[in-house]
Amino acid sequence: MPNTPSSQAPLRLGIAGLGTVGVGVIKIIQRKANLLAQRTGRSVVISAVSARSRDKDRGVTISGYAWEDDPVALALRDDVDLFVELMGGSDGPAKAATEAALAAGKDVVTANKAMLAHHGQMLAEKAEAKGAALRFEAAVAGGIPVIKALTEGLAGNRIERIAGVMNGTCNYILTRMENEGLSYDEVFEAAKALGYLEADPTLDVGGIDAGHKLALLAAIGFGTQVDFDNMVLEGIERITIEDIRHAADMGYRIKLLGVAQMTGRGLEQRMTPCLVPALSPLGQLENATNMCVLEGDEVGQIVLRGAGAGEGPTASAVMSDVLDIARGIRVPTFGVPAAALEKSTPAVAATPAPYYLRMSLLDKPGALAKIAAALGDAGVSIDRMRQYGQDVNPEVAPVLIVTDATSRASLDAALDGMKATGVLATNPVAIRIENL
Amino acid sequence: MPNTPSSQAPLRLGIAGLGTVGVGVIKIIQRKANLLAQRTGRSVVISAVSARSRDKDRGVTISGYAWEDDPVALALRDDVDLFVELMGGSDGPAKAATEAALAAGKDVVTANKAMLAHHGQMLAEKAEAKGAALRFEAAVAGGIPVIKALTEGLAGNRIERIAGVMNGTCNYILTRMENEGLSYDEVFEAAKALGYLEADPTLDVGGIDAGHKLALLAAIGFGTQVDFDNMVLEGIERITIEDIRHAADMGYRIKLLGVAQMTGRGLEQRMTPCLVPALSPLGQLENATNMCVLEGDEVGQIVLRGAGAGEGPTASAVMSDVLDIARGIRVPTFGVPAAALEKSTPAVAATPAPYYLRMSLLDKPGALAKIAAALGDAGVSIDRMRQYGQDVNPEVAPVLIVTDATSRASLDAALDGMKATGVLATNPVAIRIENL
Repeated sequence: MPNTPSSQAPLRLGIAGLGTVGVGVIKIIQRKANLLAQRTGRSVVISAVSARSRDKDRGVTISGYAWEDDPVALALRDDVDLFVELMGGSDGPAKAATEAALAAGKDVVTANKAMLAHHGQMLAEKAEAKGAALRFEAAVAGGIPVIKALTEGLAGNRIERIAGVMNGTCNYILTRMENEGLSYDEVFEAAKALGYLEADPTLDVGGIDAGHKLALLAAIGFGTQVDFDNMVLEGIERITIEDIRHAADMGYRIKLLGVAQMTGRGLEQRMTPCLVPALSPLGQLENATNMCVLEGDEVGQIVLRGAGAGEGPTASAVMSDVLDIARGIRVPTFGVPAAALEKSTPAVAATPAPYYLRMSLLDKPGALAKIAAALGDAGVSIDRMRQYGQDVNPEVAPVLIVTDATSRASLDAALDGMKATGVLATNPVAIRIENL
Repeated sequence: MPNTPSSQAPLRLGIAGLGTVGVGVIKIIQRKANLLAQRTGRSVVISAVSARSRDKDRGVTISGYAWEDDPVALALRDDVDLFVELMGGSDGPAKAATEAALAAGKDVVTANKAMLAHHGQMLAEKAEAKGAALRFEAAVAGGIPVIKALTEGLAGNRIERIAGVMNGTCNYILTRMENEGLSYDEVFEAAKALGYLEADPTLDVGGIDAGHKLALLAAIGFGTQVDFDNMVLEGIERITIEDIRHAADMGYRIKLLGVAQMTGRGLEQRMTPCLVPALSPLGQLENATNMCVLEGDEVGQIVLRGAGAGEGPTASAVMSDVLDIARGIRVPTFGVPAAALEKSTPAVAATPAPYYLRMSLLDKPGALAKIAAALGDAGVSIDRMRQYGQDVNPEVAPVLIVTDATSRASLDAALDGMKATGVLATNPVAIRIENL
């Protein structure tokens, strides 16, 4: 048990990065000192901070903390026990300071999914070599304590599948497109104006940010080395309002959904737009809310839902790690010792699924029969088909098909066969359906 | 960091109670020895077991473990480091053995909500006095790691509200009533025949079991001593198929919903049937699934969903505690030292809410106006009202009212006023509406 606050030395933090999350962490430590001391058995204090600009008004007083221009110097200060990395960026100062802290045997808490997705294995090894903790609850799904649930709460399970909607910006864009009937470009510009997008928007809308998060969960869940490079990534840029409407007509919604699964052929990791049932927990997810689905052999399916970003939720996650360390809780970065993490074999498109297909057929006799035959020839059977009226263009008939579960290889063969019929007005759109 | 398996002594368990959950725990330990050792850095082994009958076929081999008839003797064995209490019952052998284990300075993991709801404070004090851990993830919401989320994951938050559907049997009964149009009694008998009910069914359908769970979450969330005795408890026995149907007509579903909230007047704890929006996460909860809603000042709302009972899910939760202890994770039983837990002031019905009212009016002139006036006189305003046709009995008109948010005191005054009008054919039904 933790002892009384007075009996243990305070835990002294050095915080690098004073953006939204850093400020949120400072507020919690300043405003809840007694509560935190009661919960951990020791005081949690800030010794020093570092950021790009010293004088910016951040709404919190930082004059009581030492200032360092250089985050590496901050990490190495004698009065810093725990280095809190909130700068971001997969390399550069964040990585340099994290490595310096770990090399000095100091614990590190970070919210940096990009750094861990690219250098997680190396950093976990460095942490362990010095007996230091490296924790990252805030890097995945904001305030949802999903790393803790997976690493500790479900530690008695063999994890079978991990899925989730973990980029709030993408879900916000898709929700607004659907609710307001707007195009992707319109909502993208609105989101940009509201400051919802990263400096490089591809990180969000290209699925990269969400992919980083899924890669970290997969490493913990399956005991494998983080393998972001072999993730199948597809963003939401090509999703049209037509697809959103047709999906809704058939009882689905489109989400940027991540799925990681250990298959007989290896580790399958996908972060792609998918159709999910409109009334399922994932289908009902609106705006920037995140959801993680964890499936274990003992526990079945656990679903966690909450804010995926923002000052309070992300700072809450950072504090969860900070307070764990104050309490003396030490768990390996990815749940098992870094040396025990296996190199996984990537399995692309190993799991069959039904697909949604949208296409426009030229107004030729037998066009639909030719499409159906192309699907049948590739071994893809049809669950439902709808042909719409030719309102807009009398020469072209929009057709929707939902297939039965099929492998991606068979689907690709069917798509090739469909193109060869000569009855397609445009290339068909194919989106995977996940019954999650 | 945990060391390699070989460098640390094994964690030796004594398991008392070999029902569904105990057998589930044994299976996990037998089948996943290497995985668990990798995750915790040491082996987890079973030294001895105890149960009512030694020779029953349980589907697992227990001949490799020492046998004790007496759970107290089991708890005190030299080769038992961690006592796993899975017998159940608030007093009797479970309590005696738990106290014996803690007095001997041994860690205890239990799934026993009744014991902790009644003796949690005393047991937490006994544990701390000896530096022992007392953990109970499996006592609340089965496989959902909600104790861990609240105690550790949200430790940087001041908790504002805790809510949940935490008795799978009640939710199963309500779901079947709605889906199949059956009466409470019909589904109750079916559930009994399926073995879904406790030996004393009042524990389930009277809301007691779920109330125990809510009381434990409230203690952690608000840093207060467990106070089950002051919880407002109401079971589902009086819920009729009519209420379920009318609620559905108005976009609601009826759930046995627990809410704990710290108010200006003290701690409000309720486990009662409530109407919730049919399309909300809680409203969509089907069958035996559980859901916990945690609201913190930083994180906002976190929702956790999963199986609330059953061998695998509950054993998963027990193992979460066992593996935490193997990893050296030690957190106070209710999140802060037992001496710091405050005695709360109970606040009954402190939070206003809208209510659903169902009544039958005698076929008298101005009957509805009199009811509306009685509500108005008590300061209760009407959000929606529906009068149904007098199909069944031409003398009596069924009326539904949804009020605006009102205090329970005003509602009770309105109900008294309605009775005094002399136009009611029967006592009105009043069910709280929670927009959760």
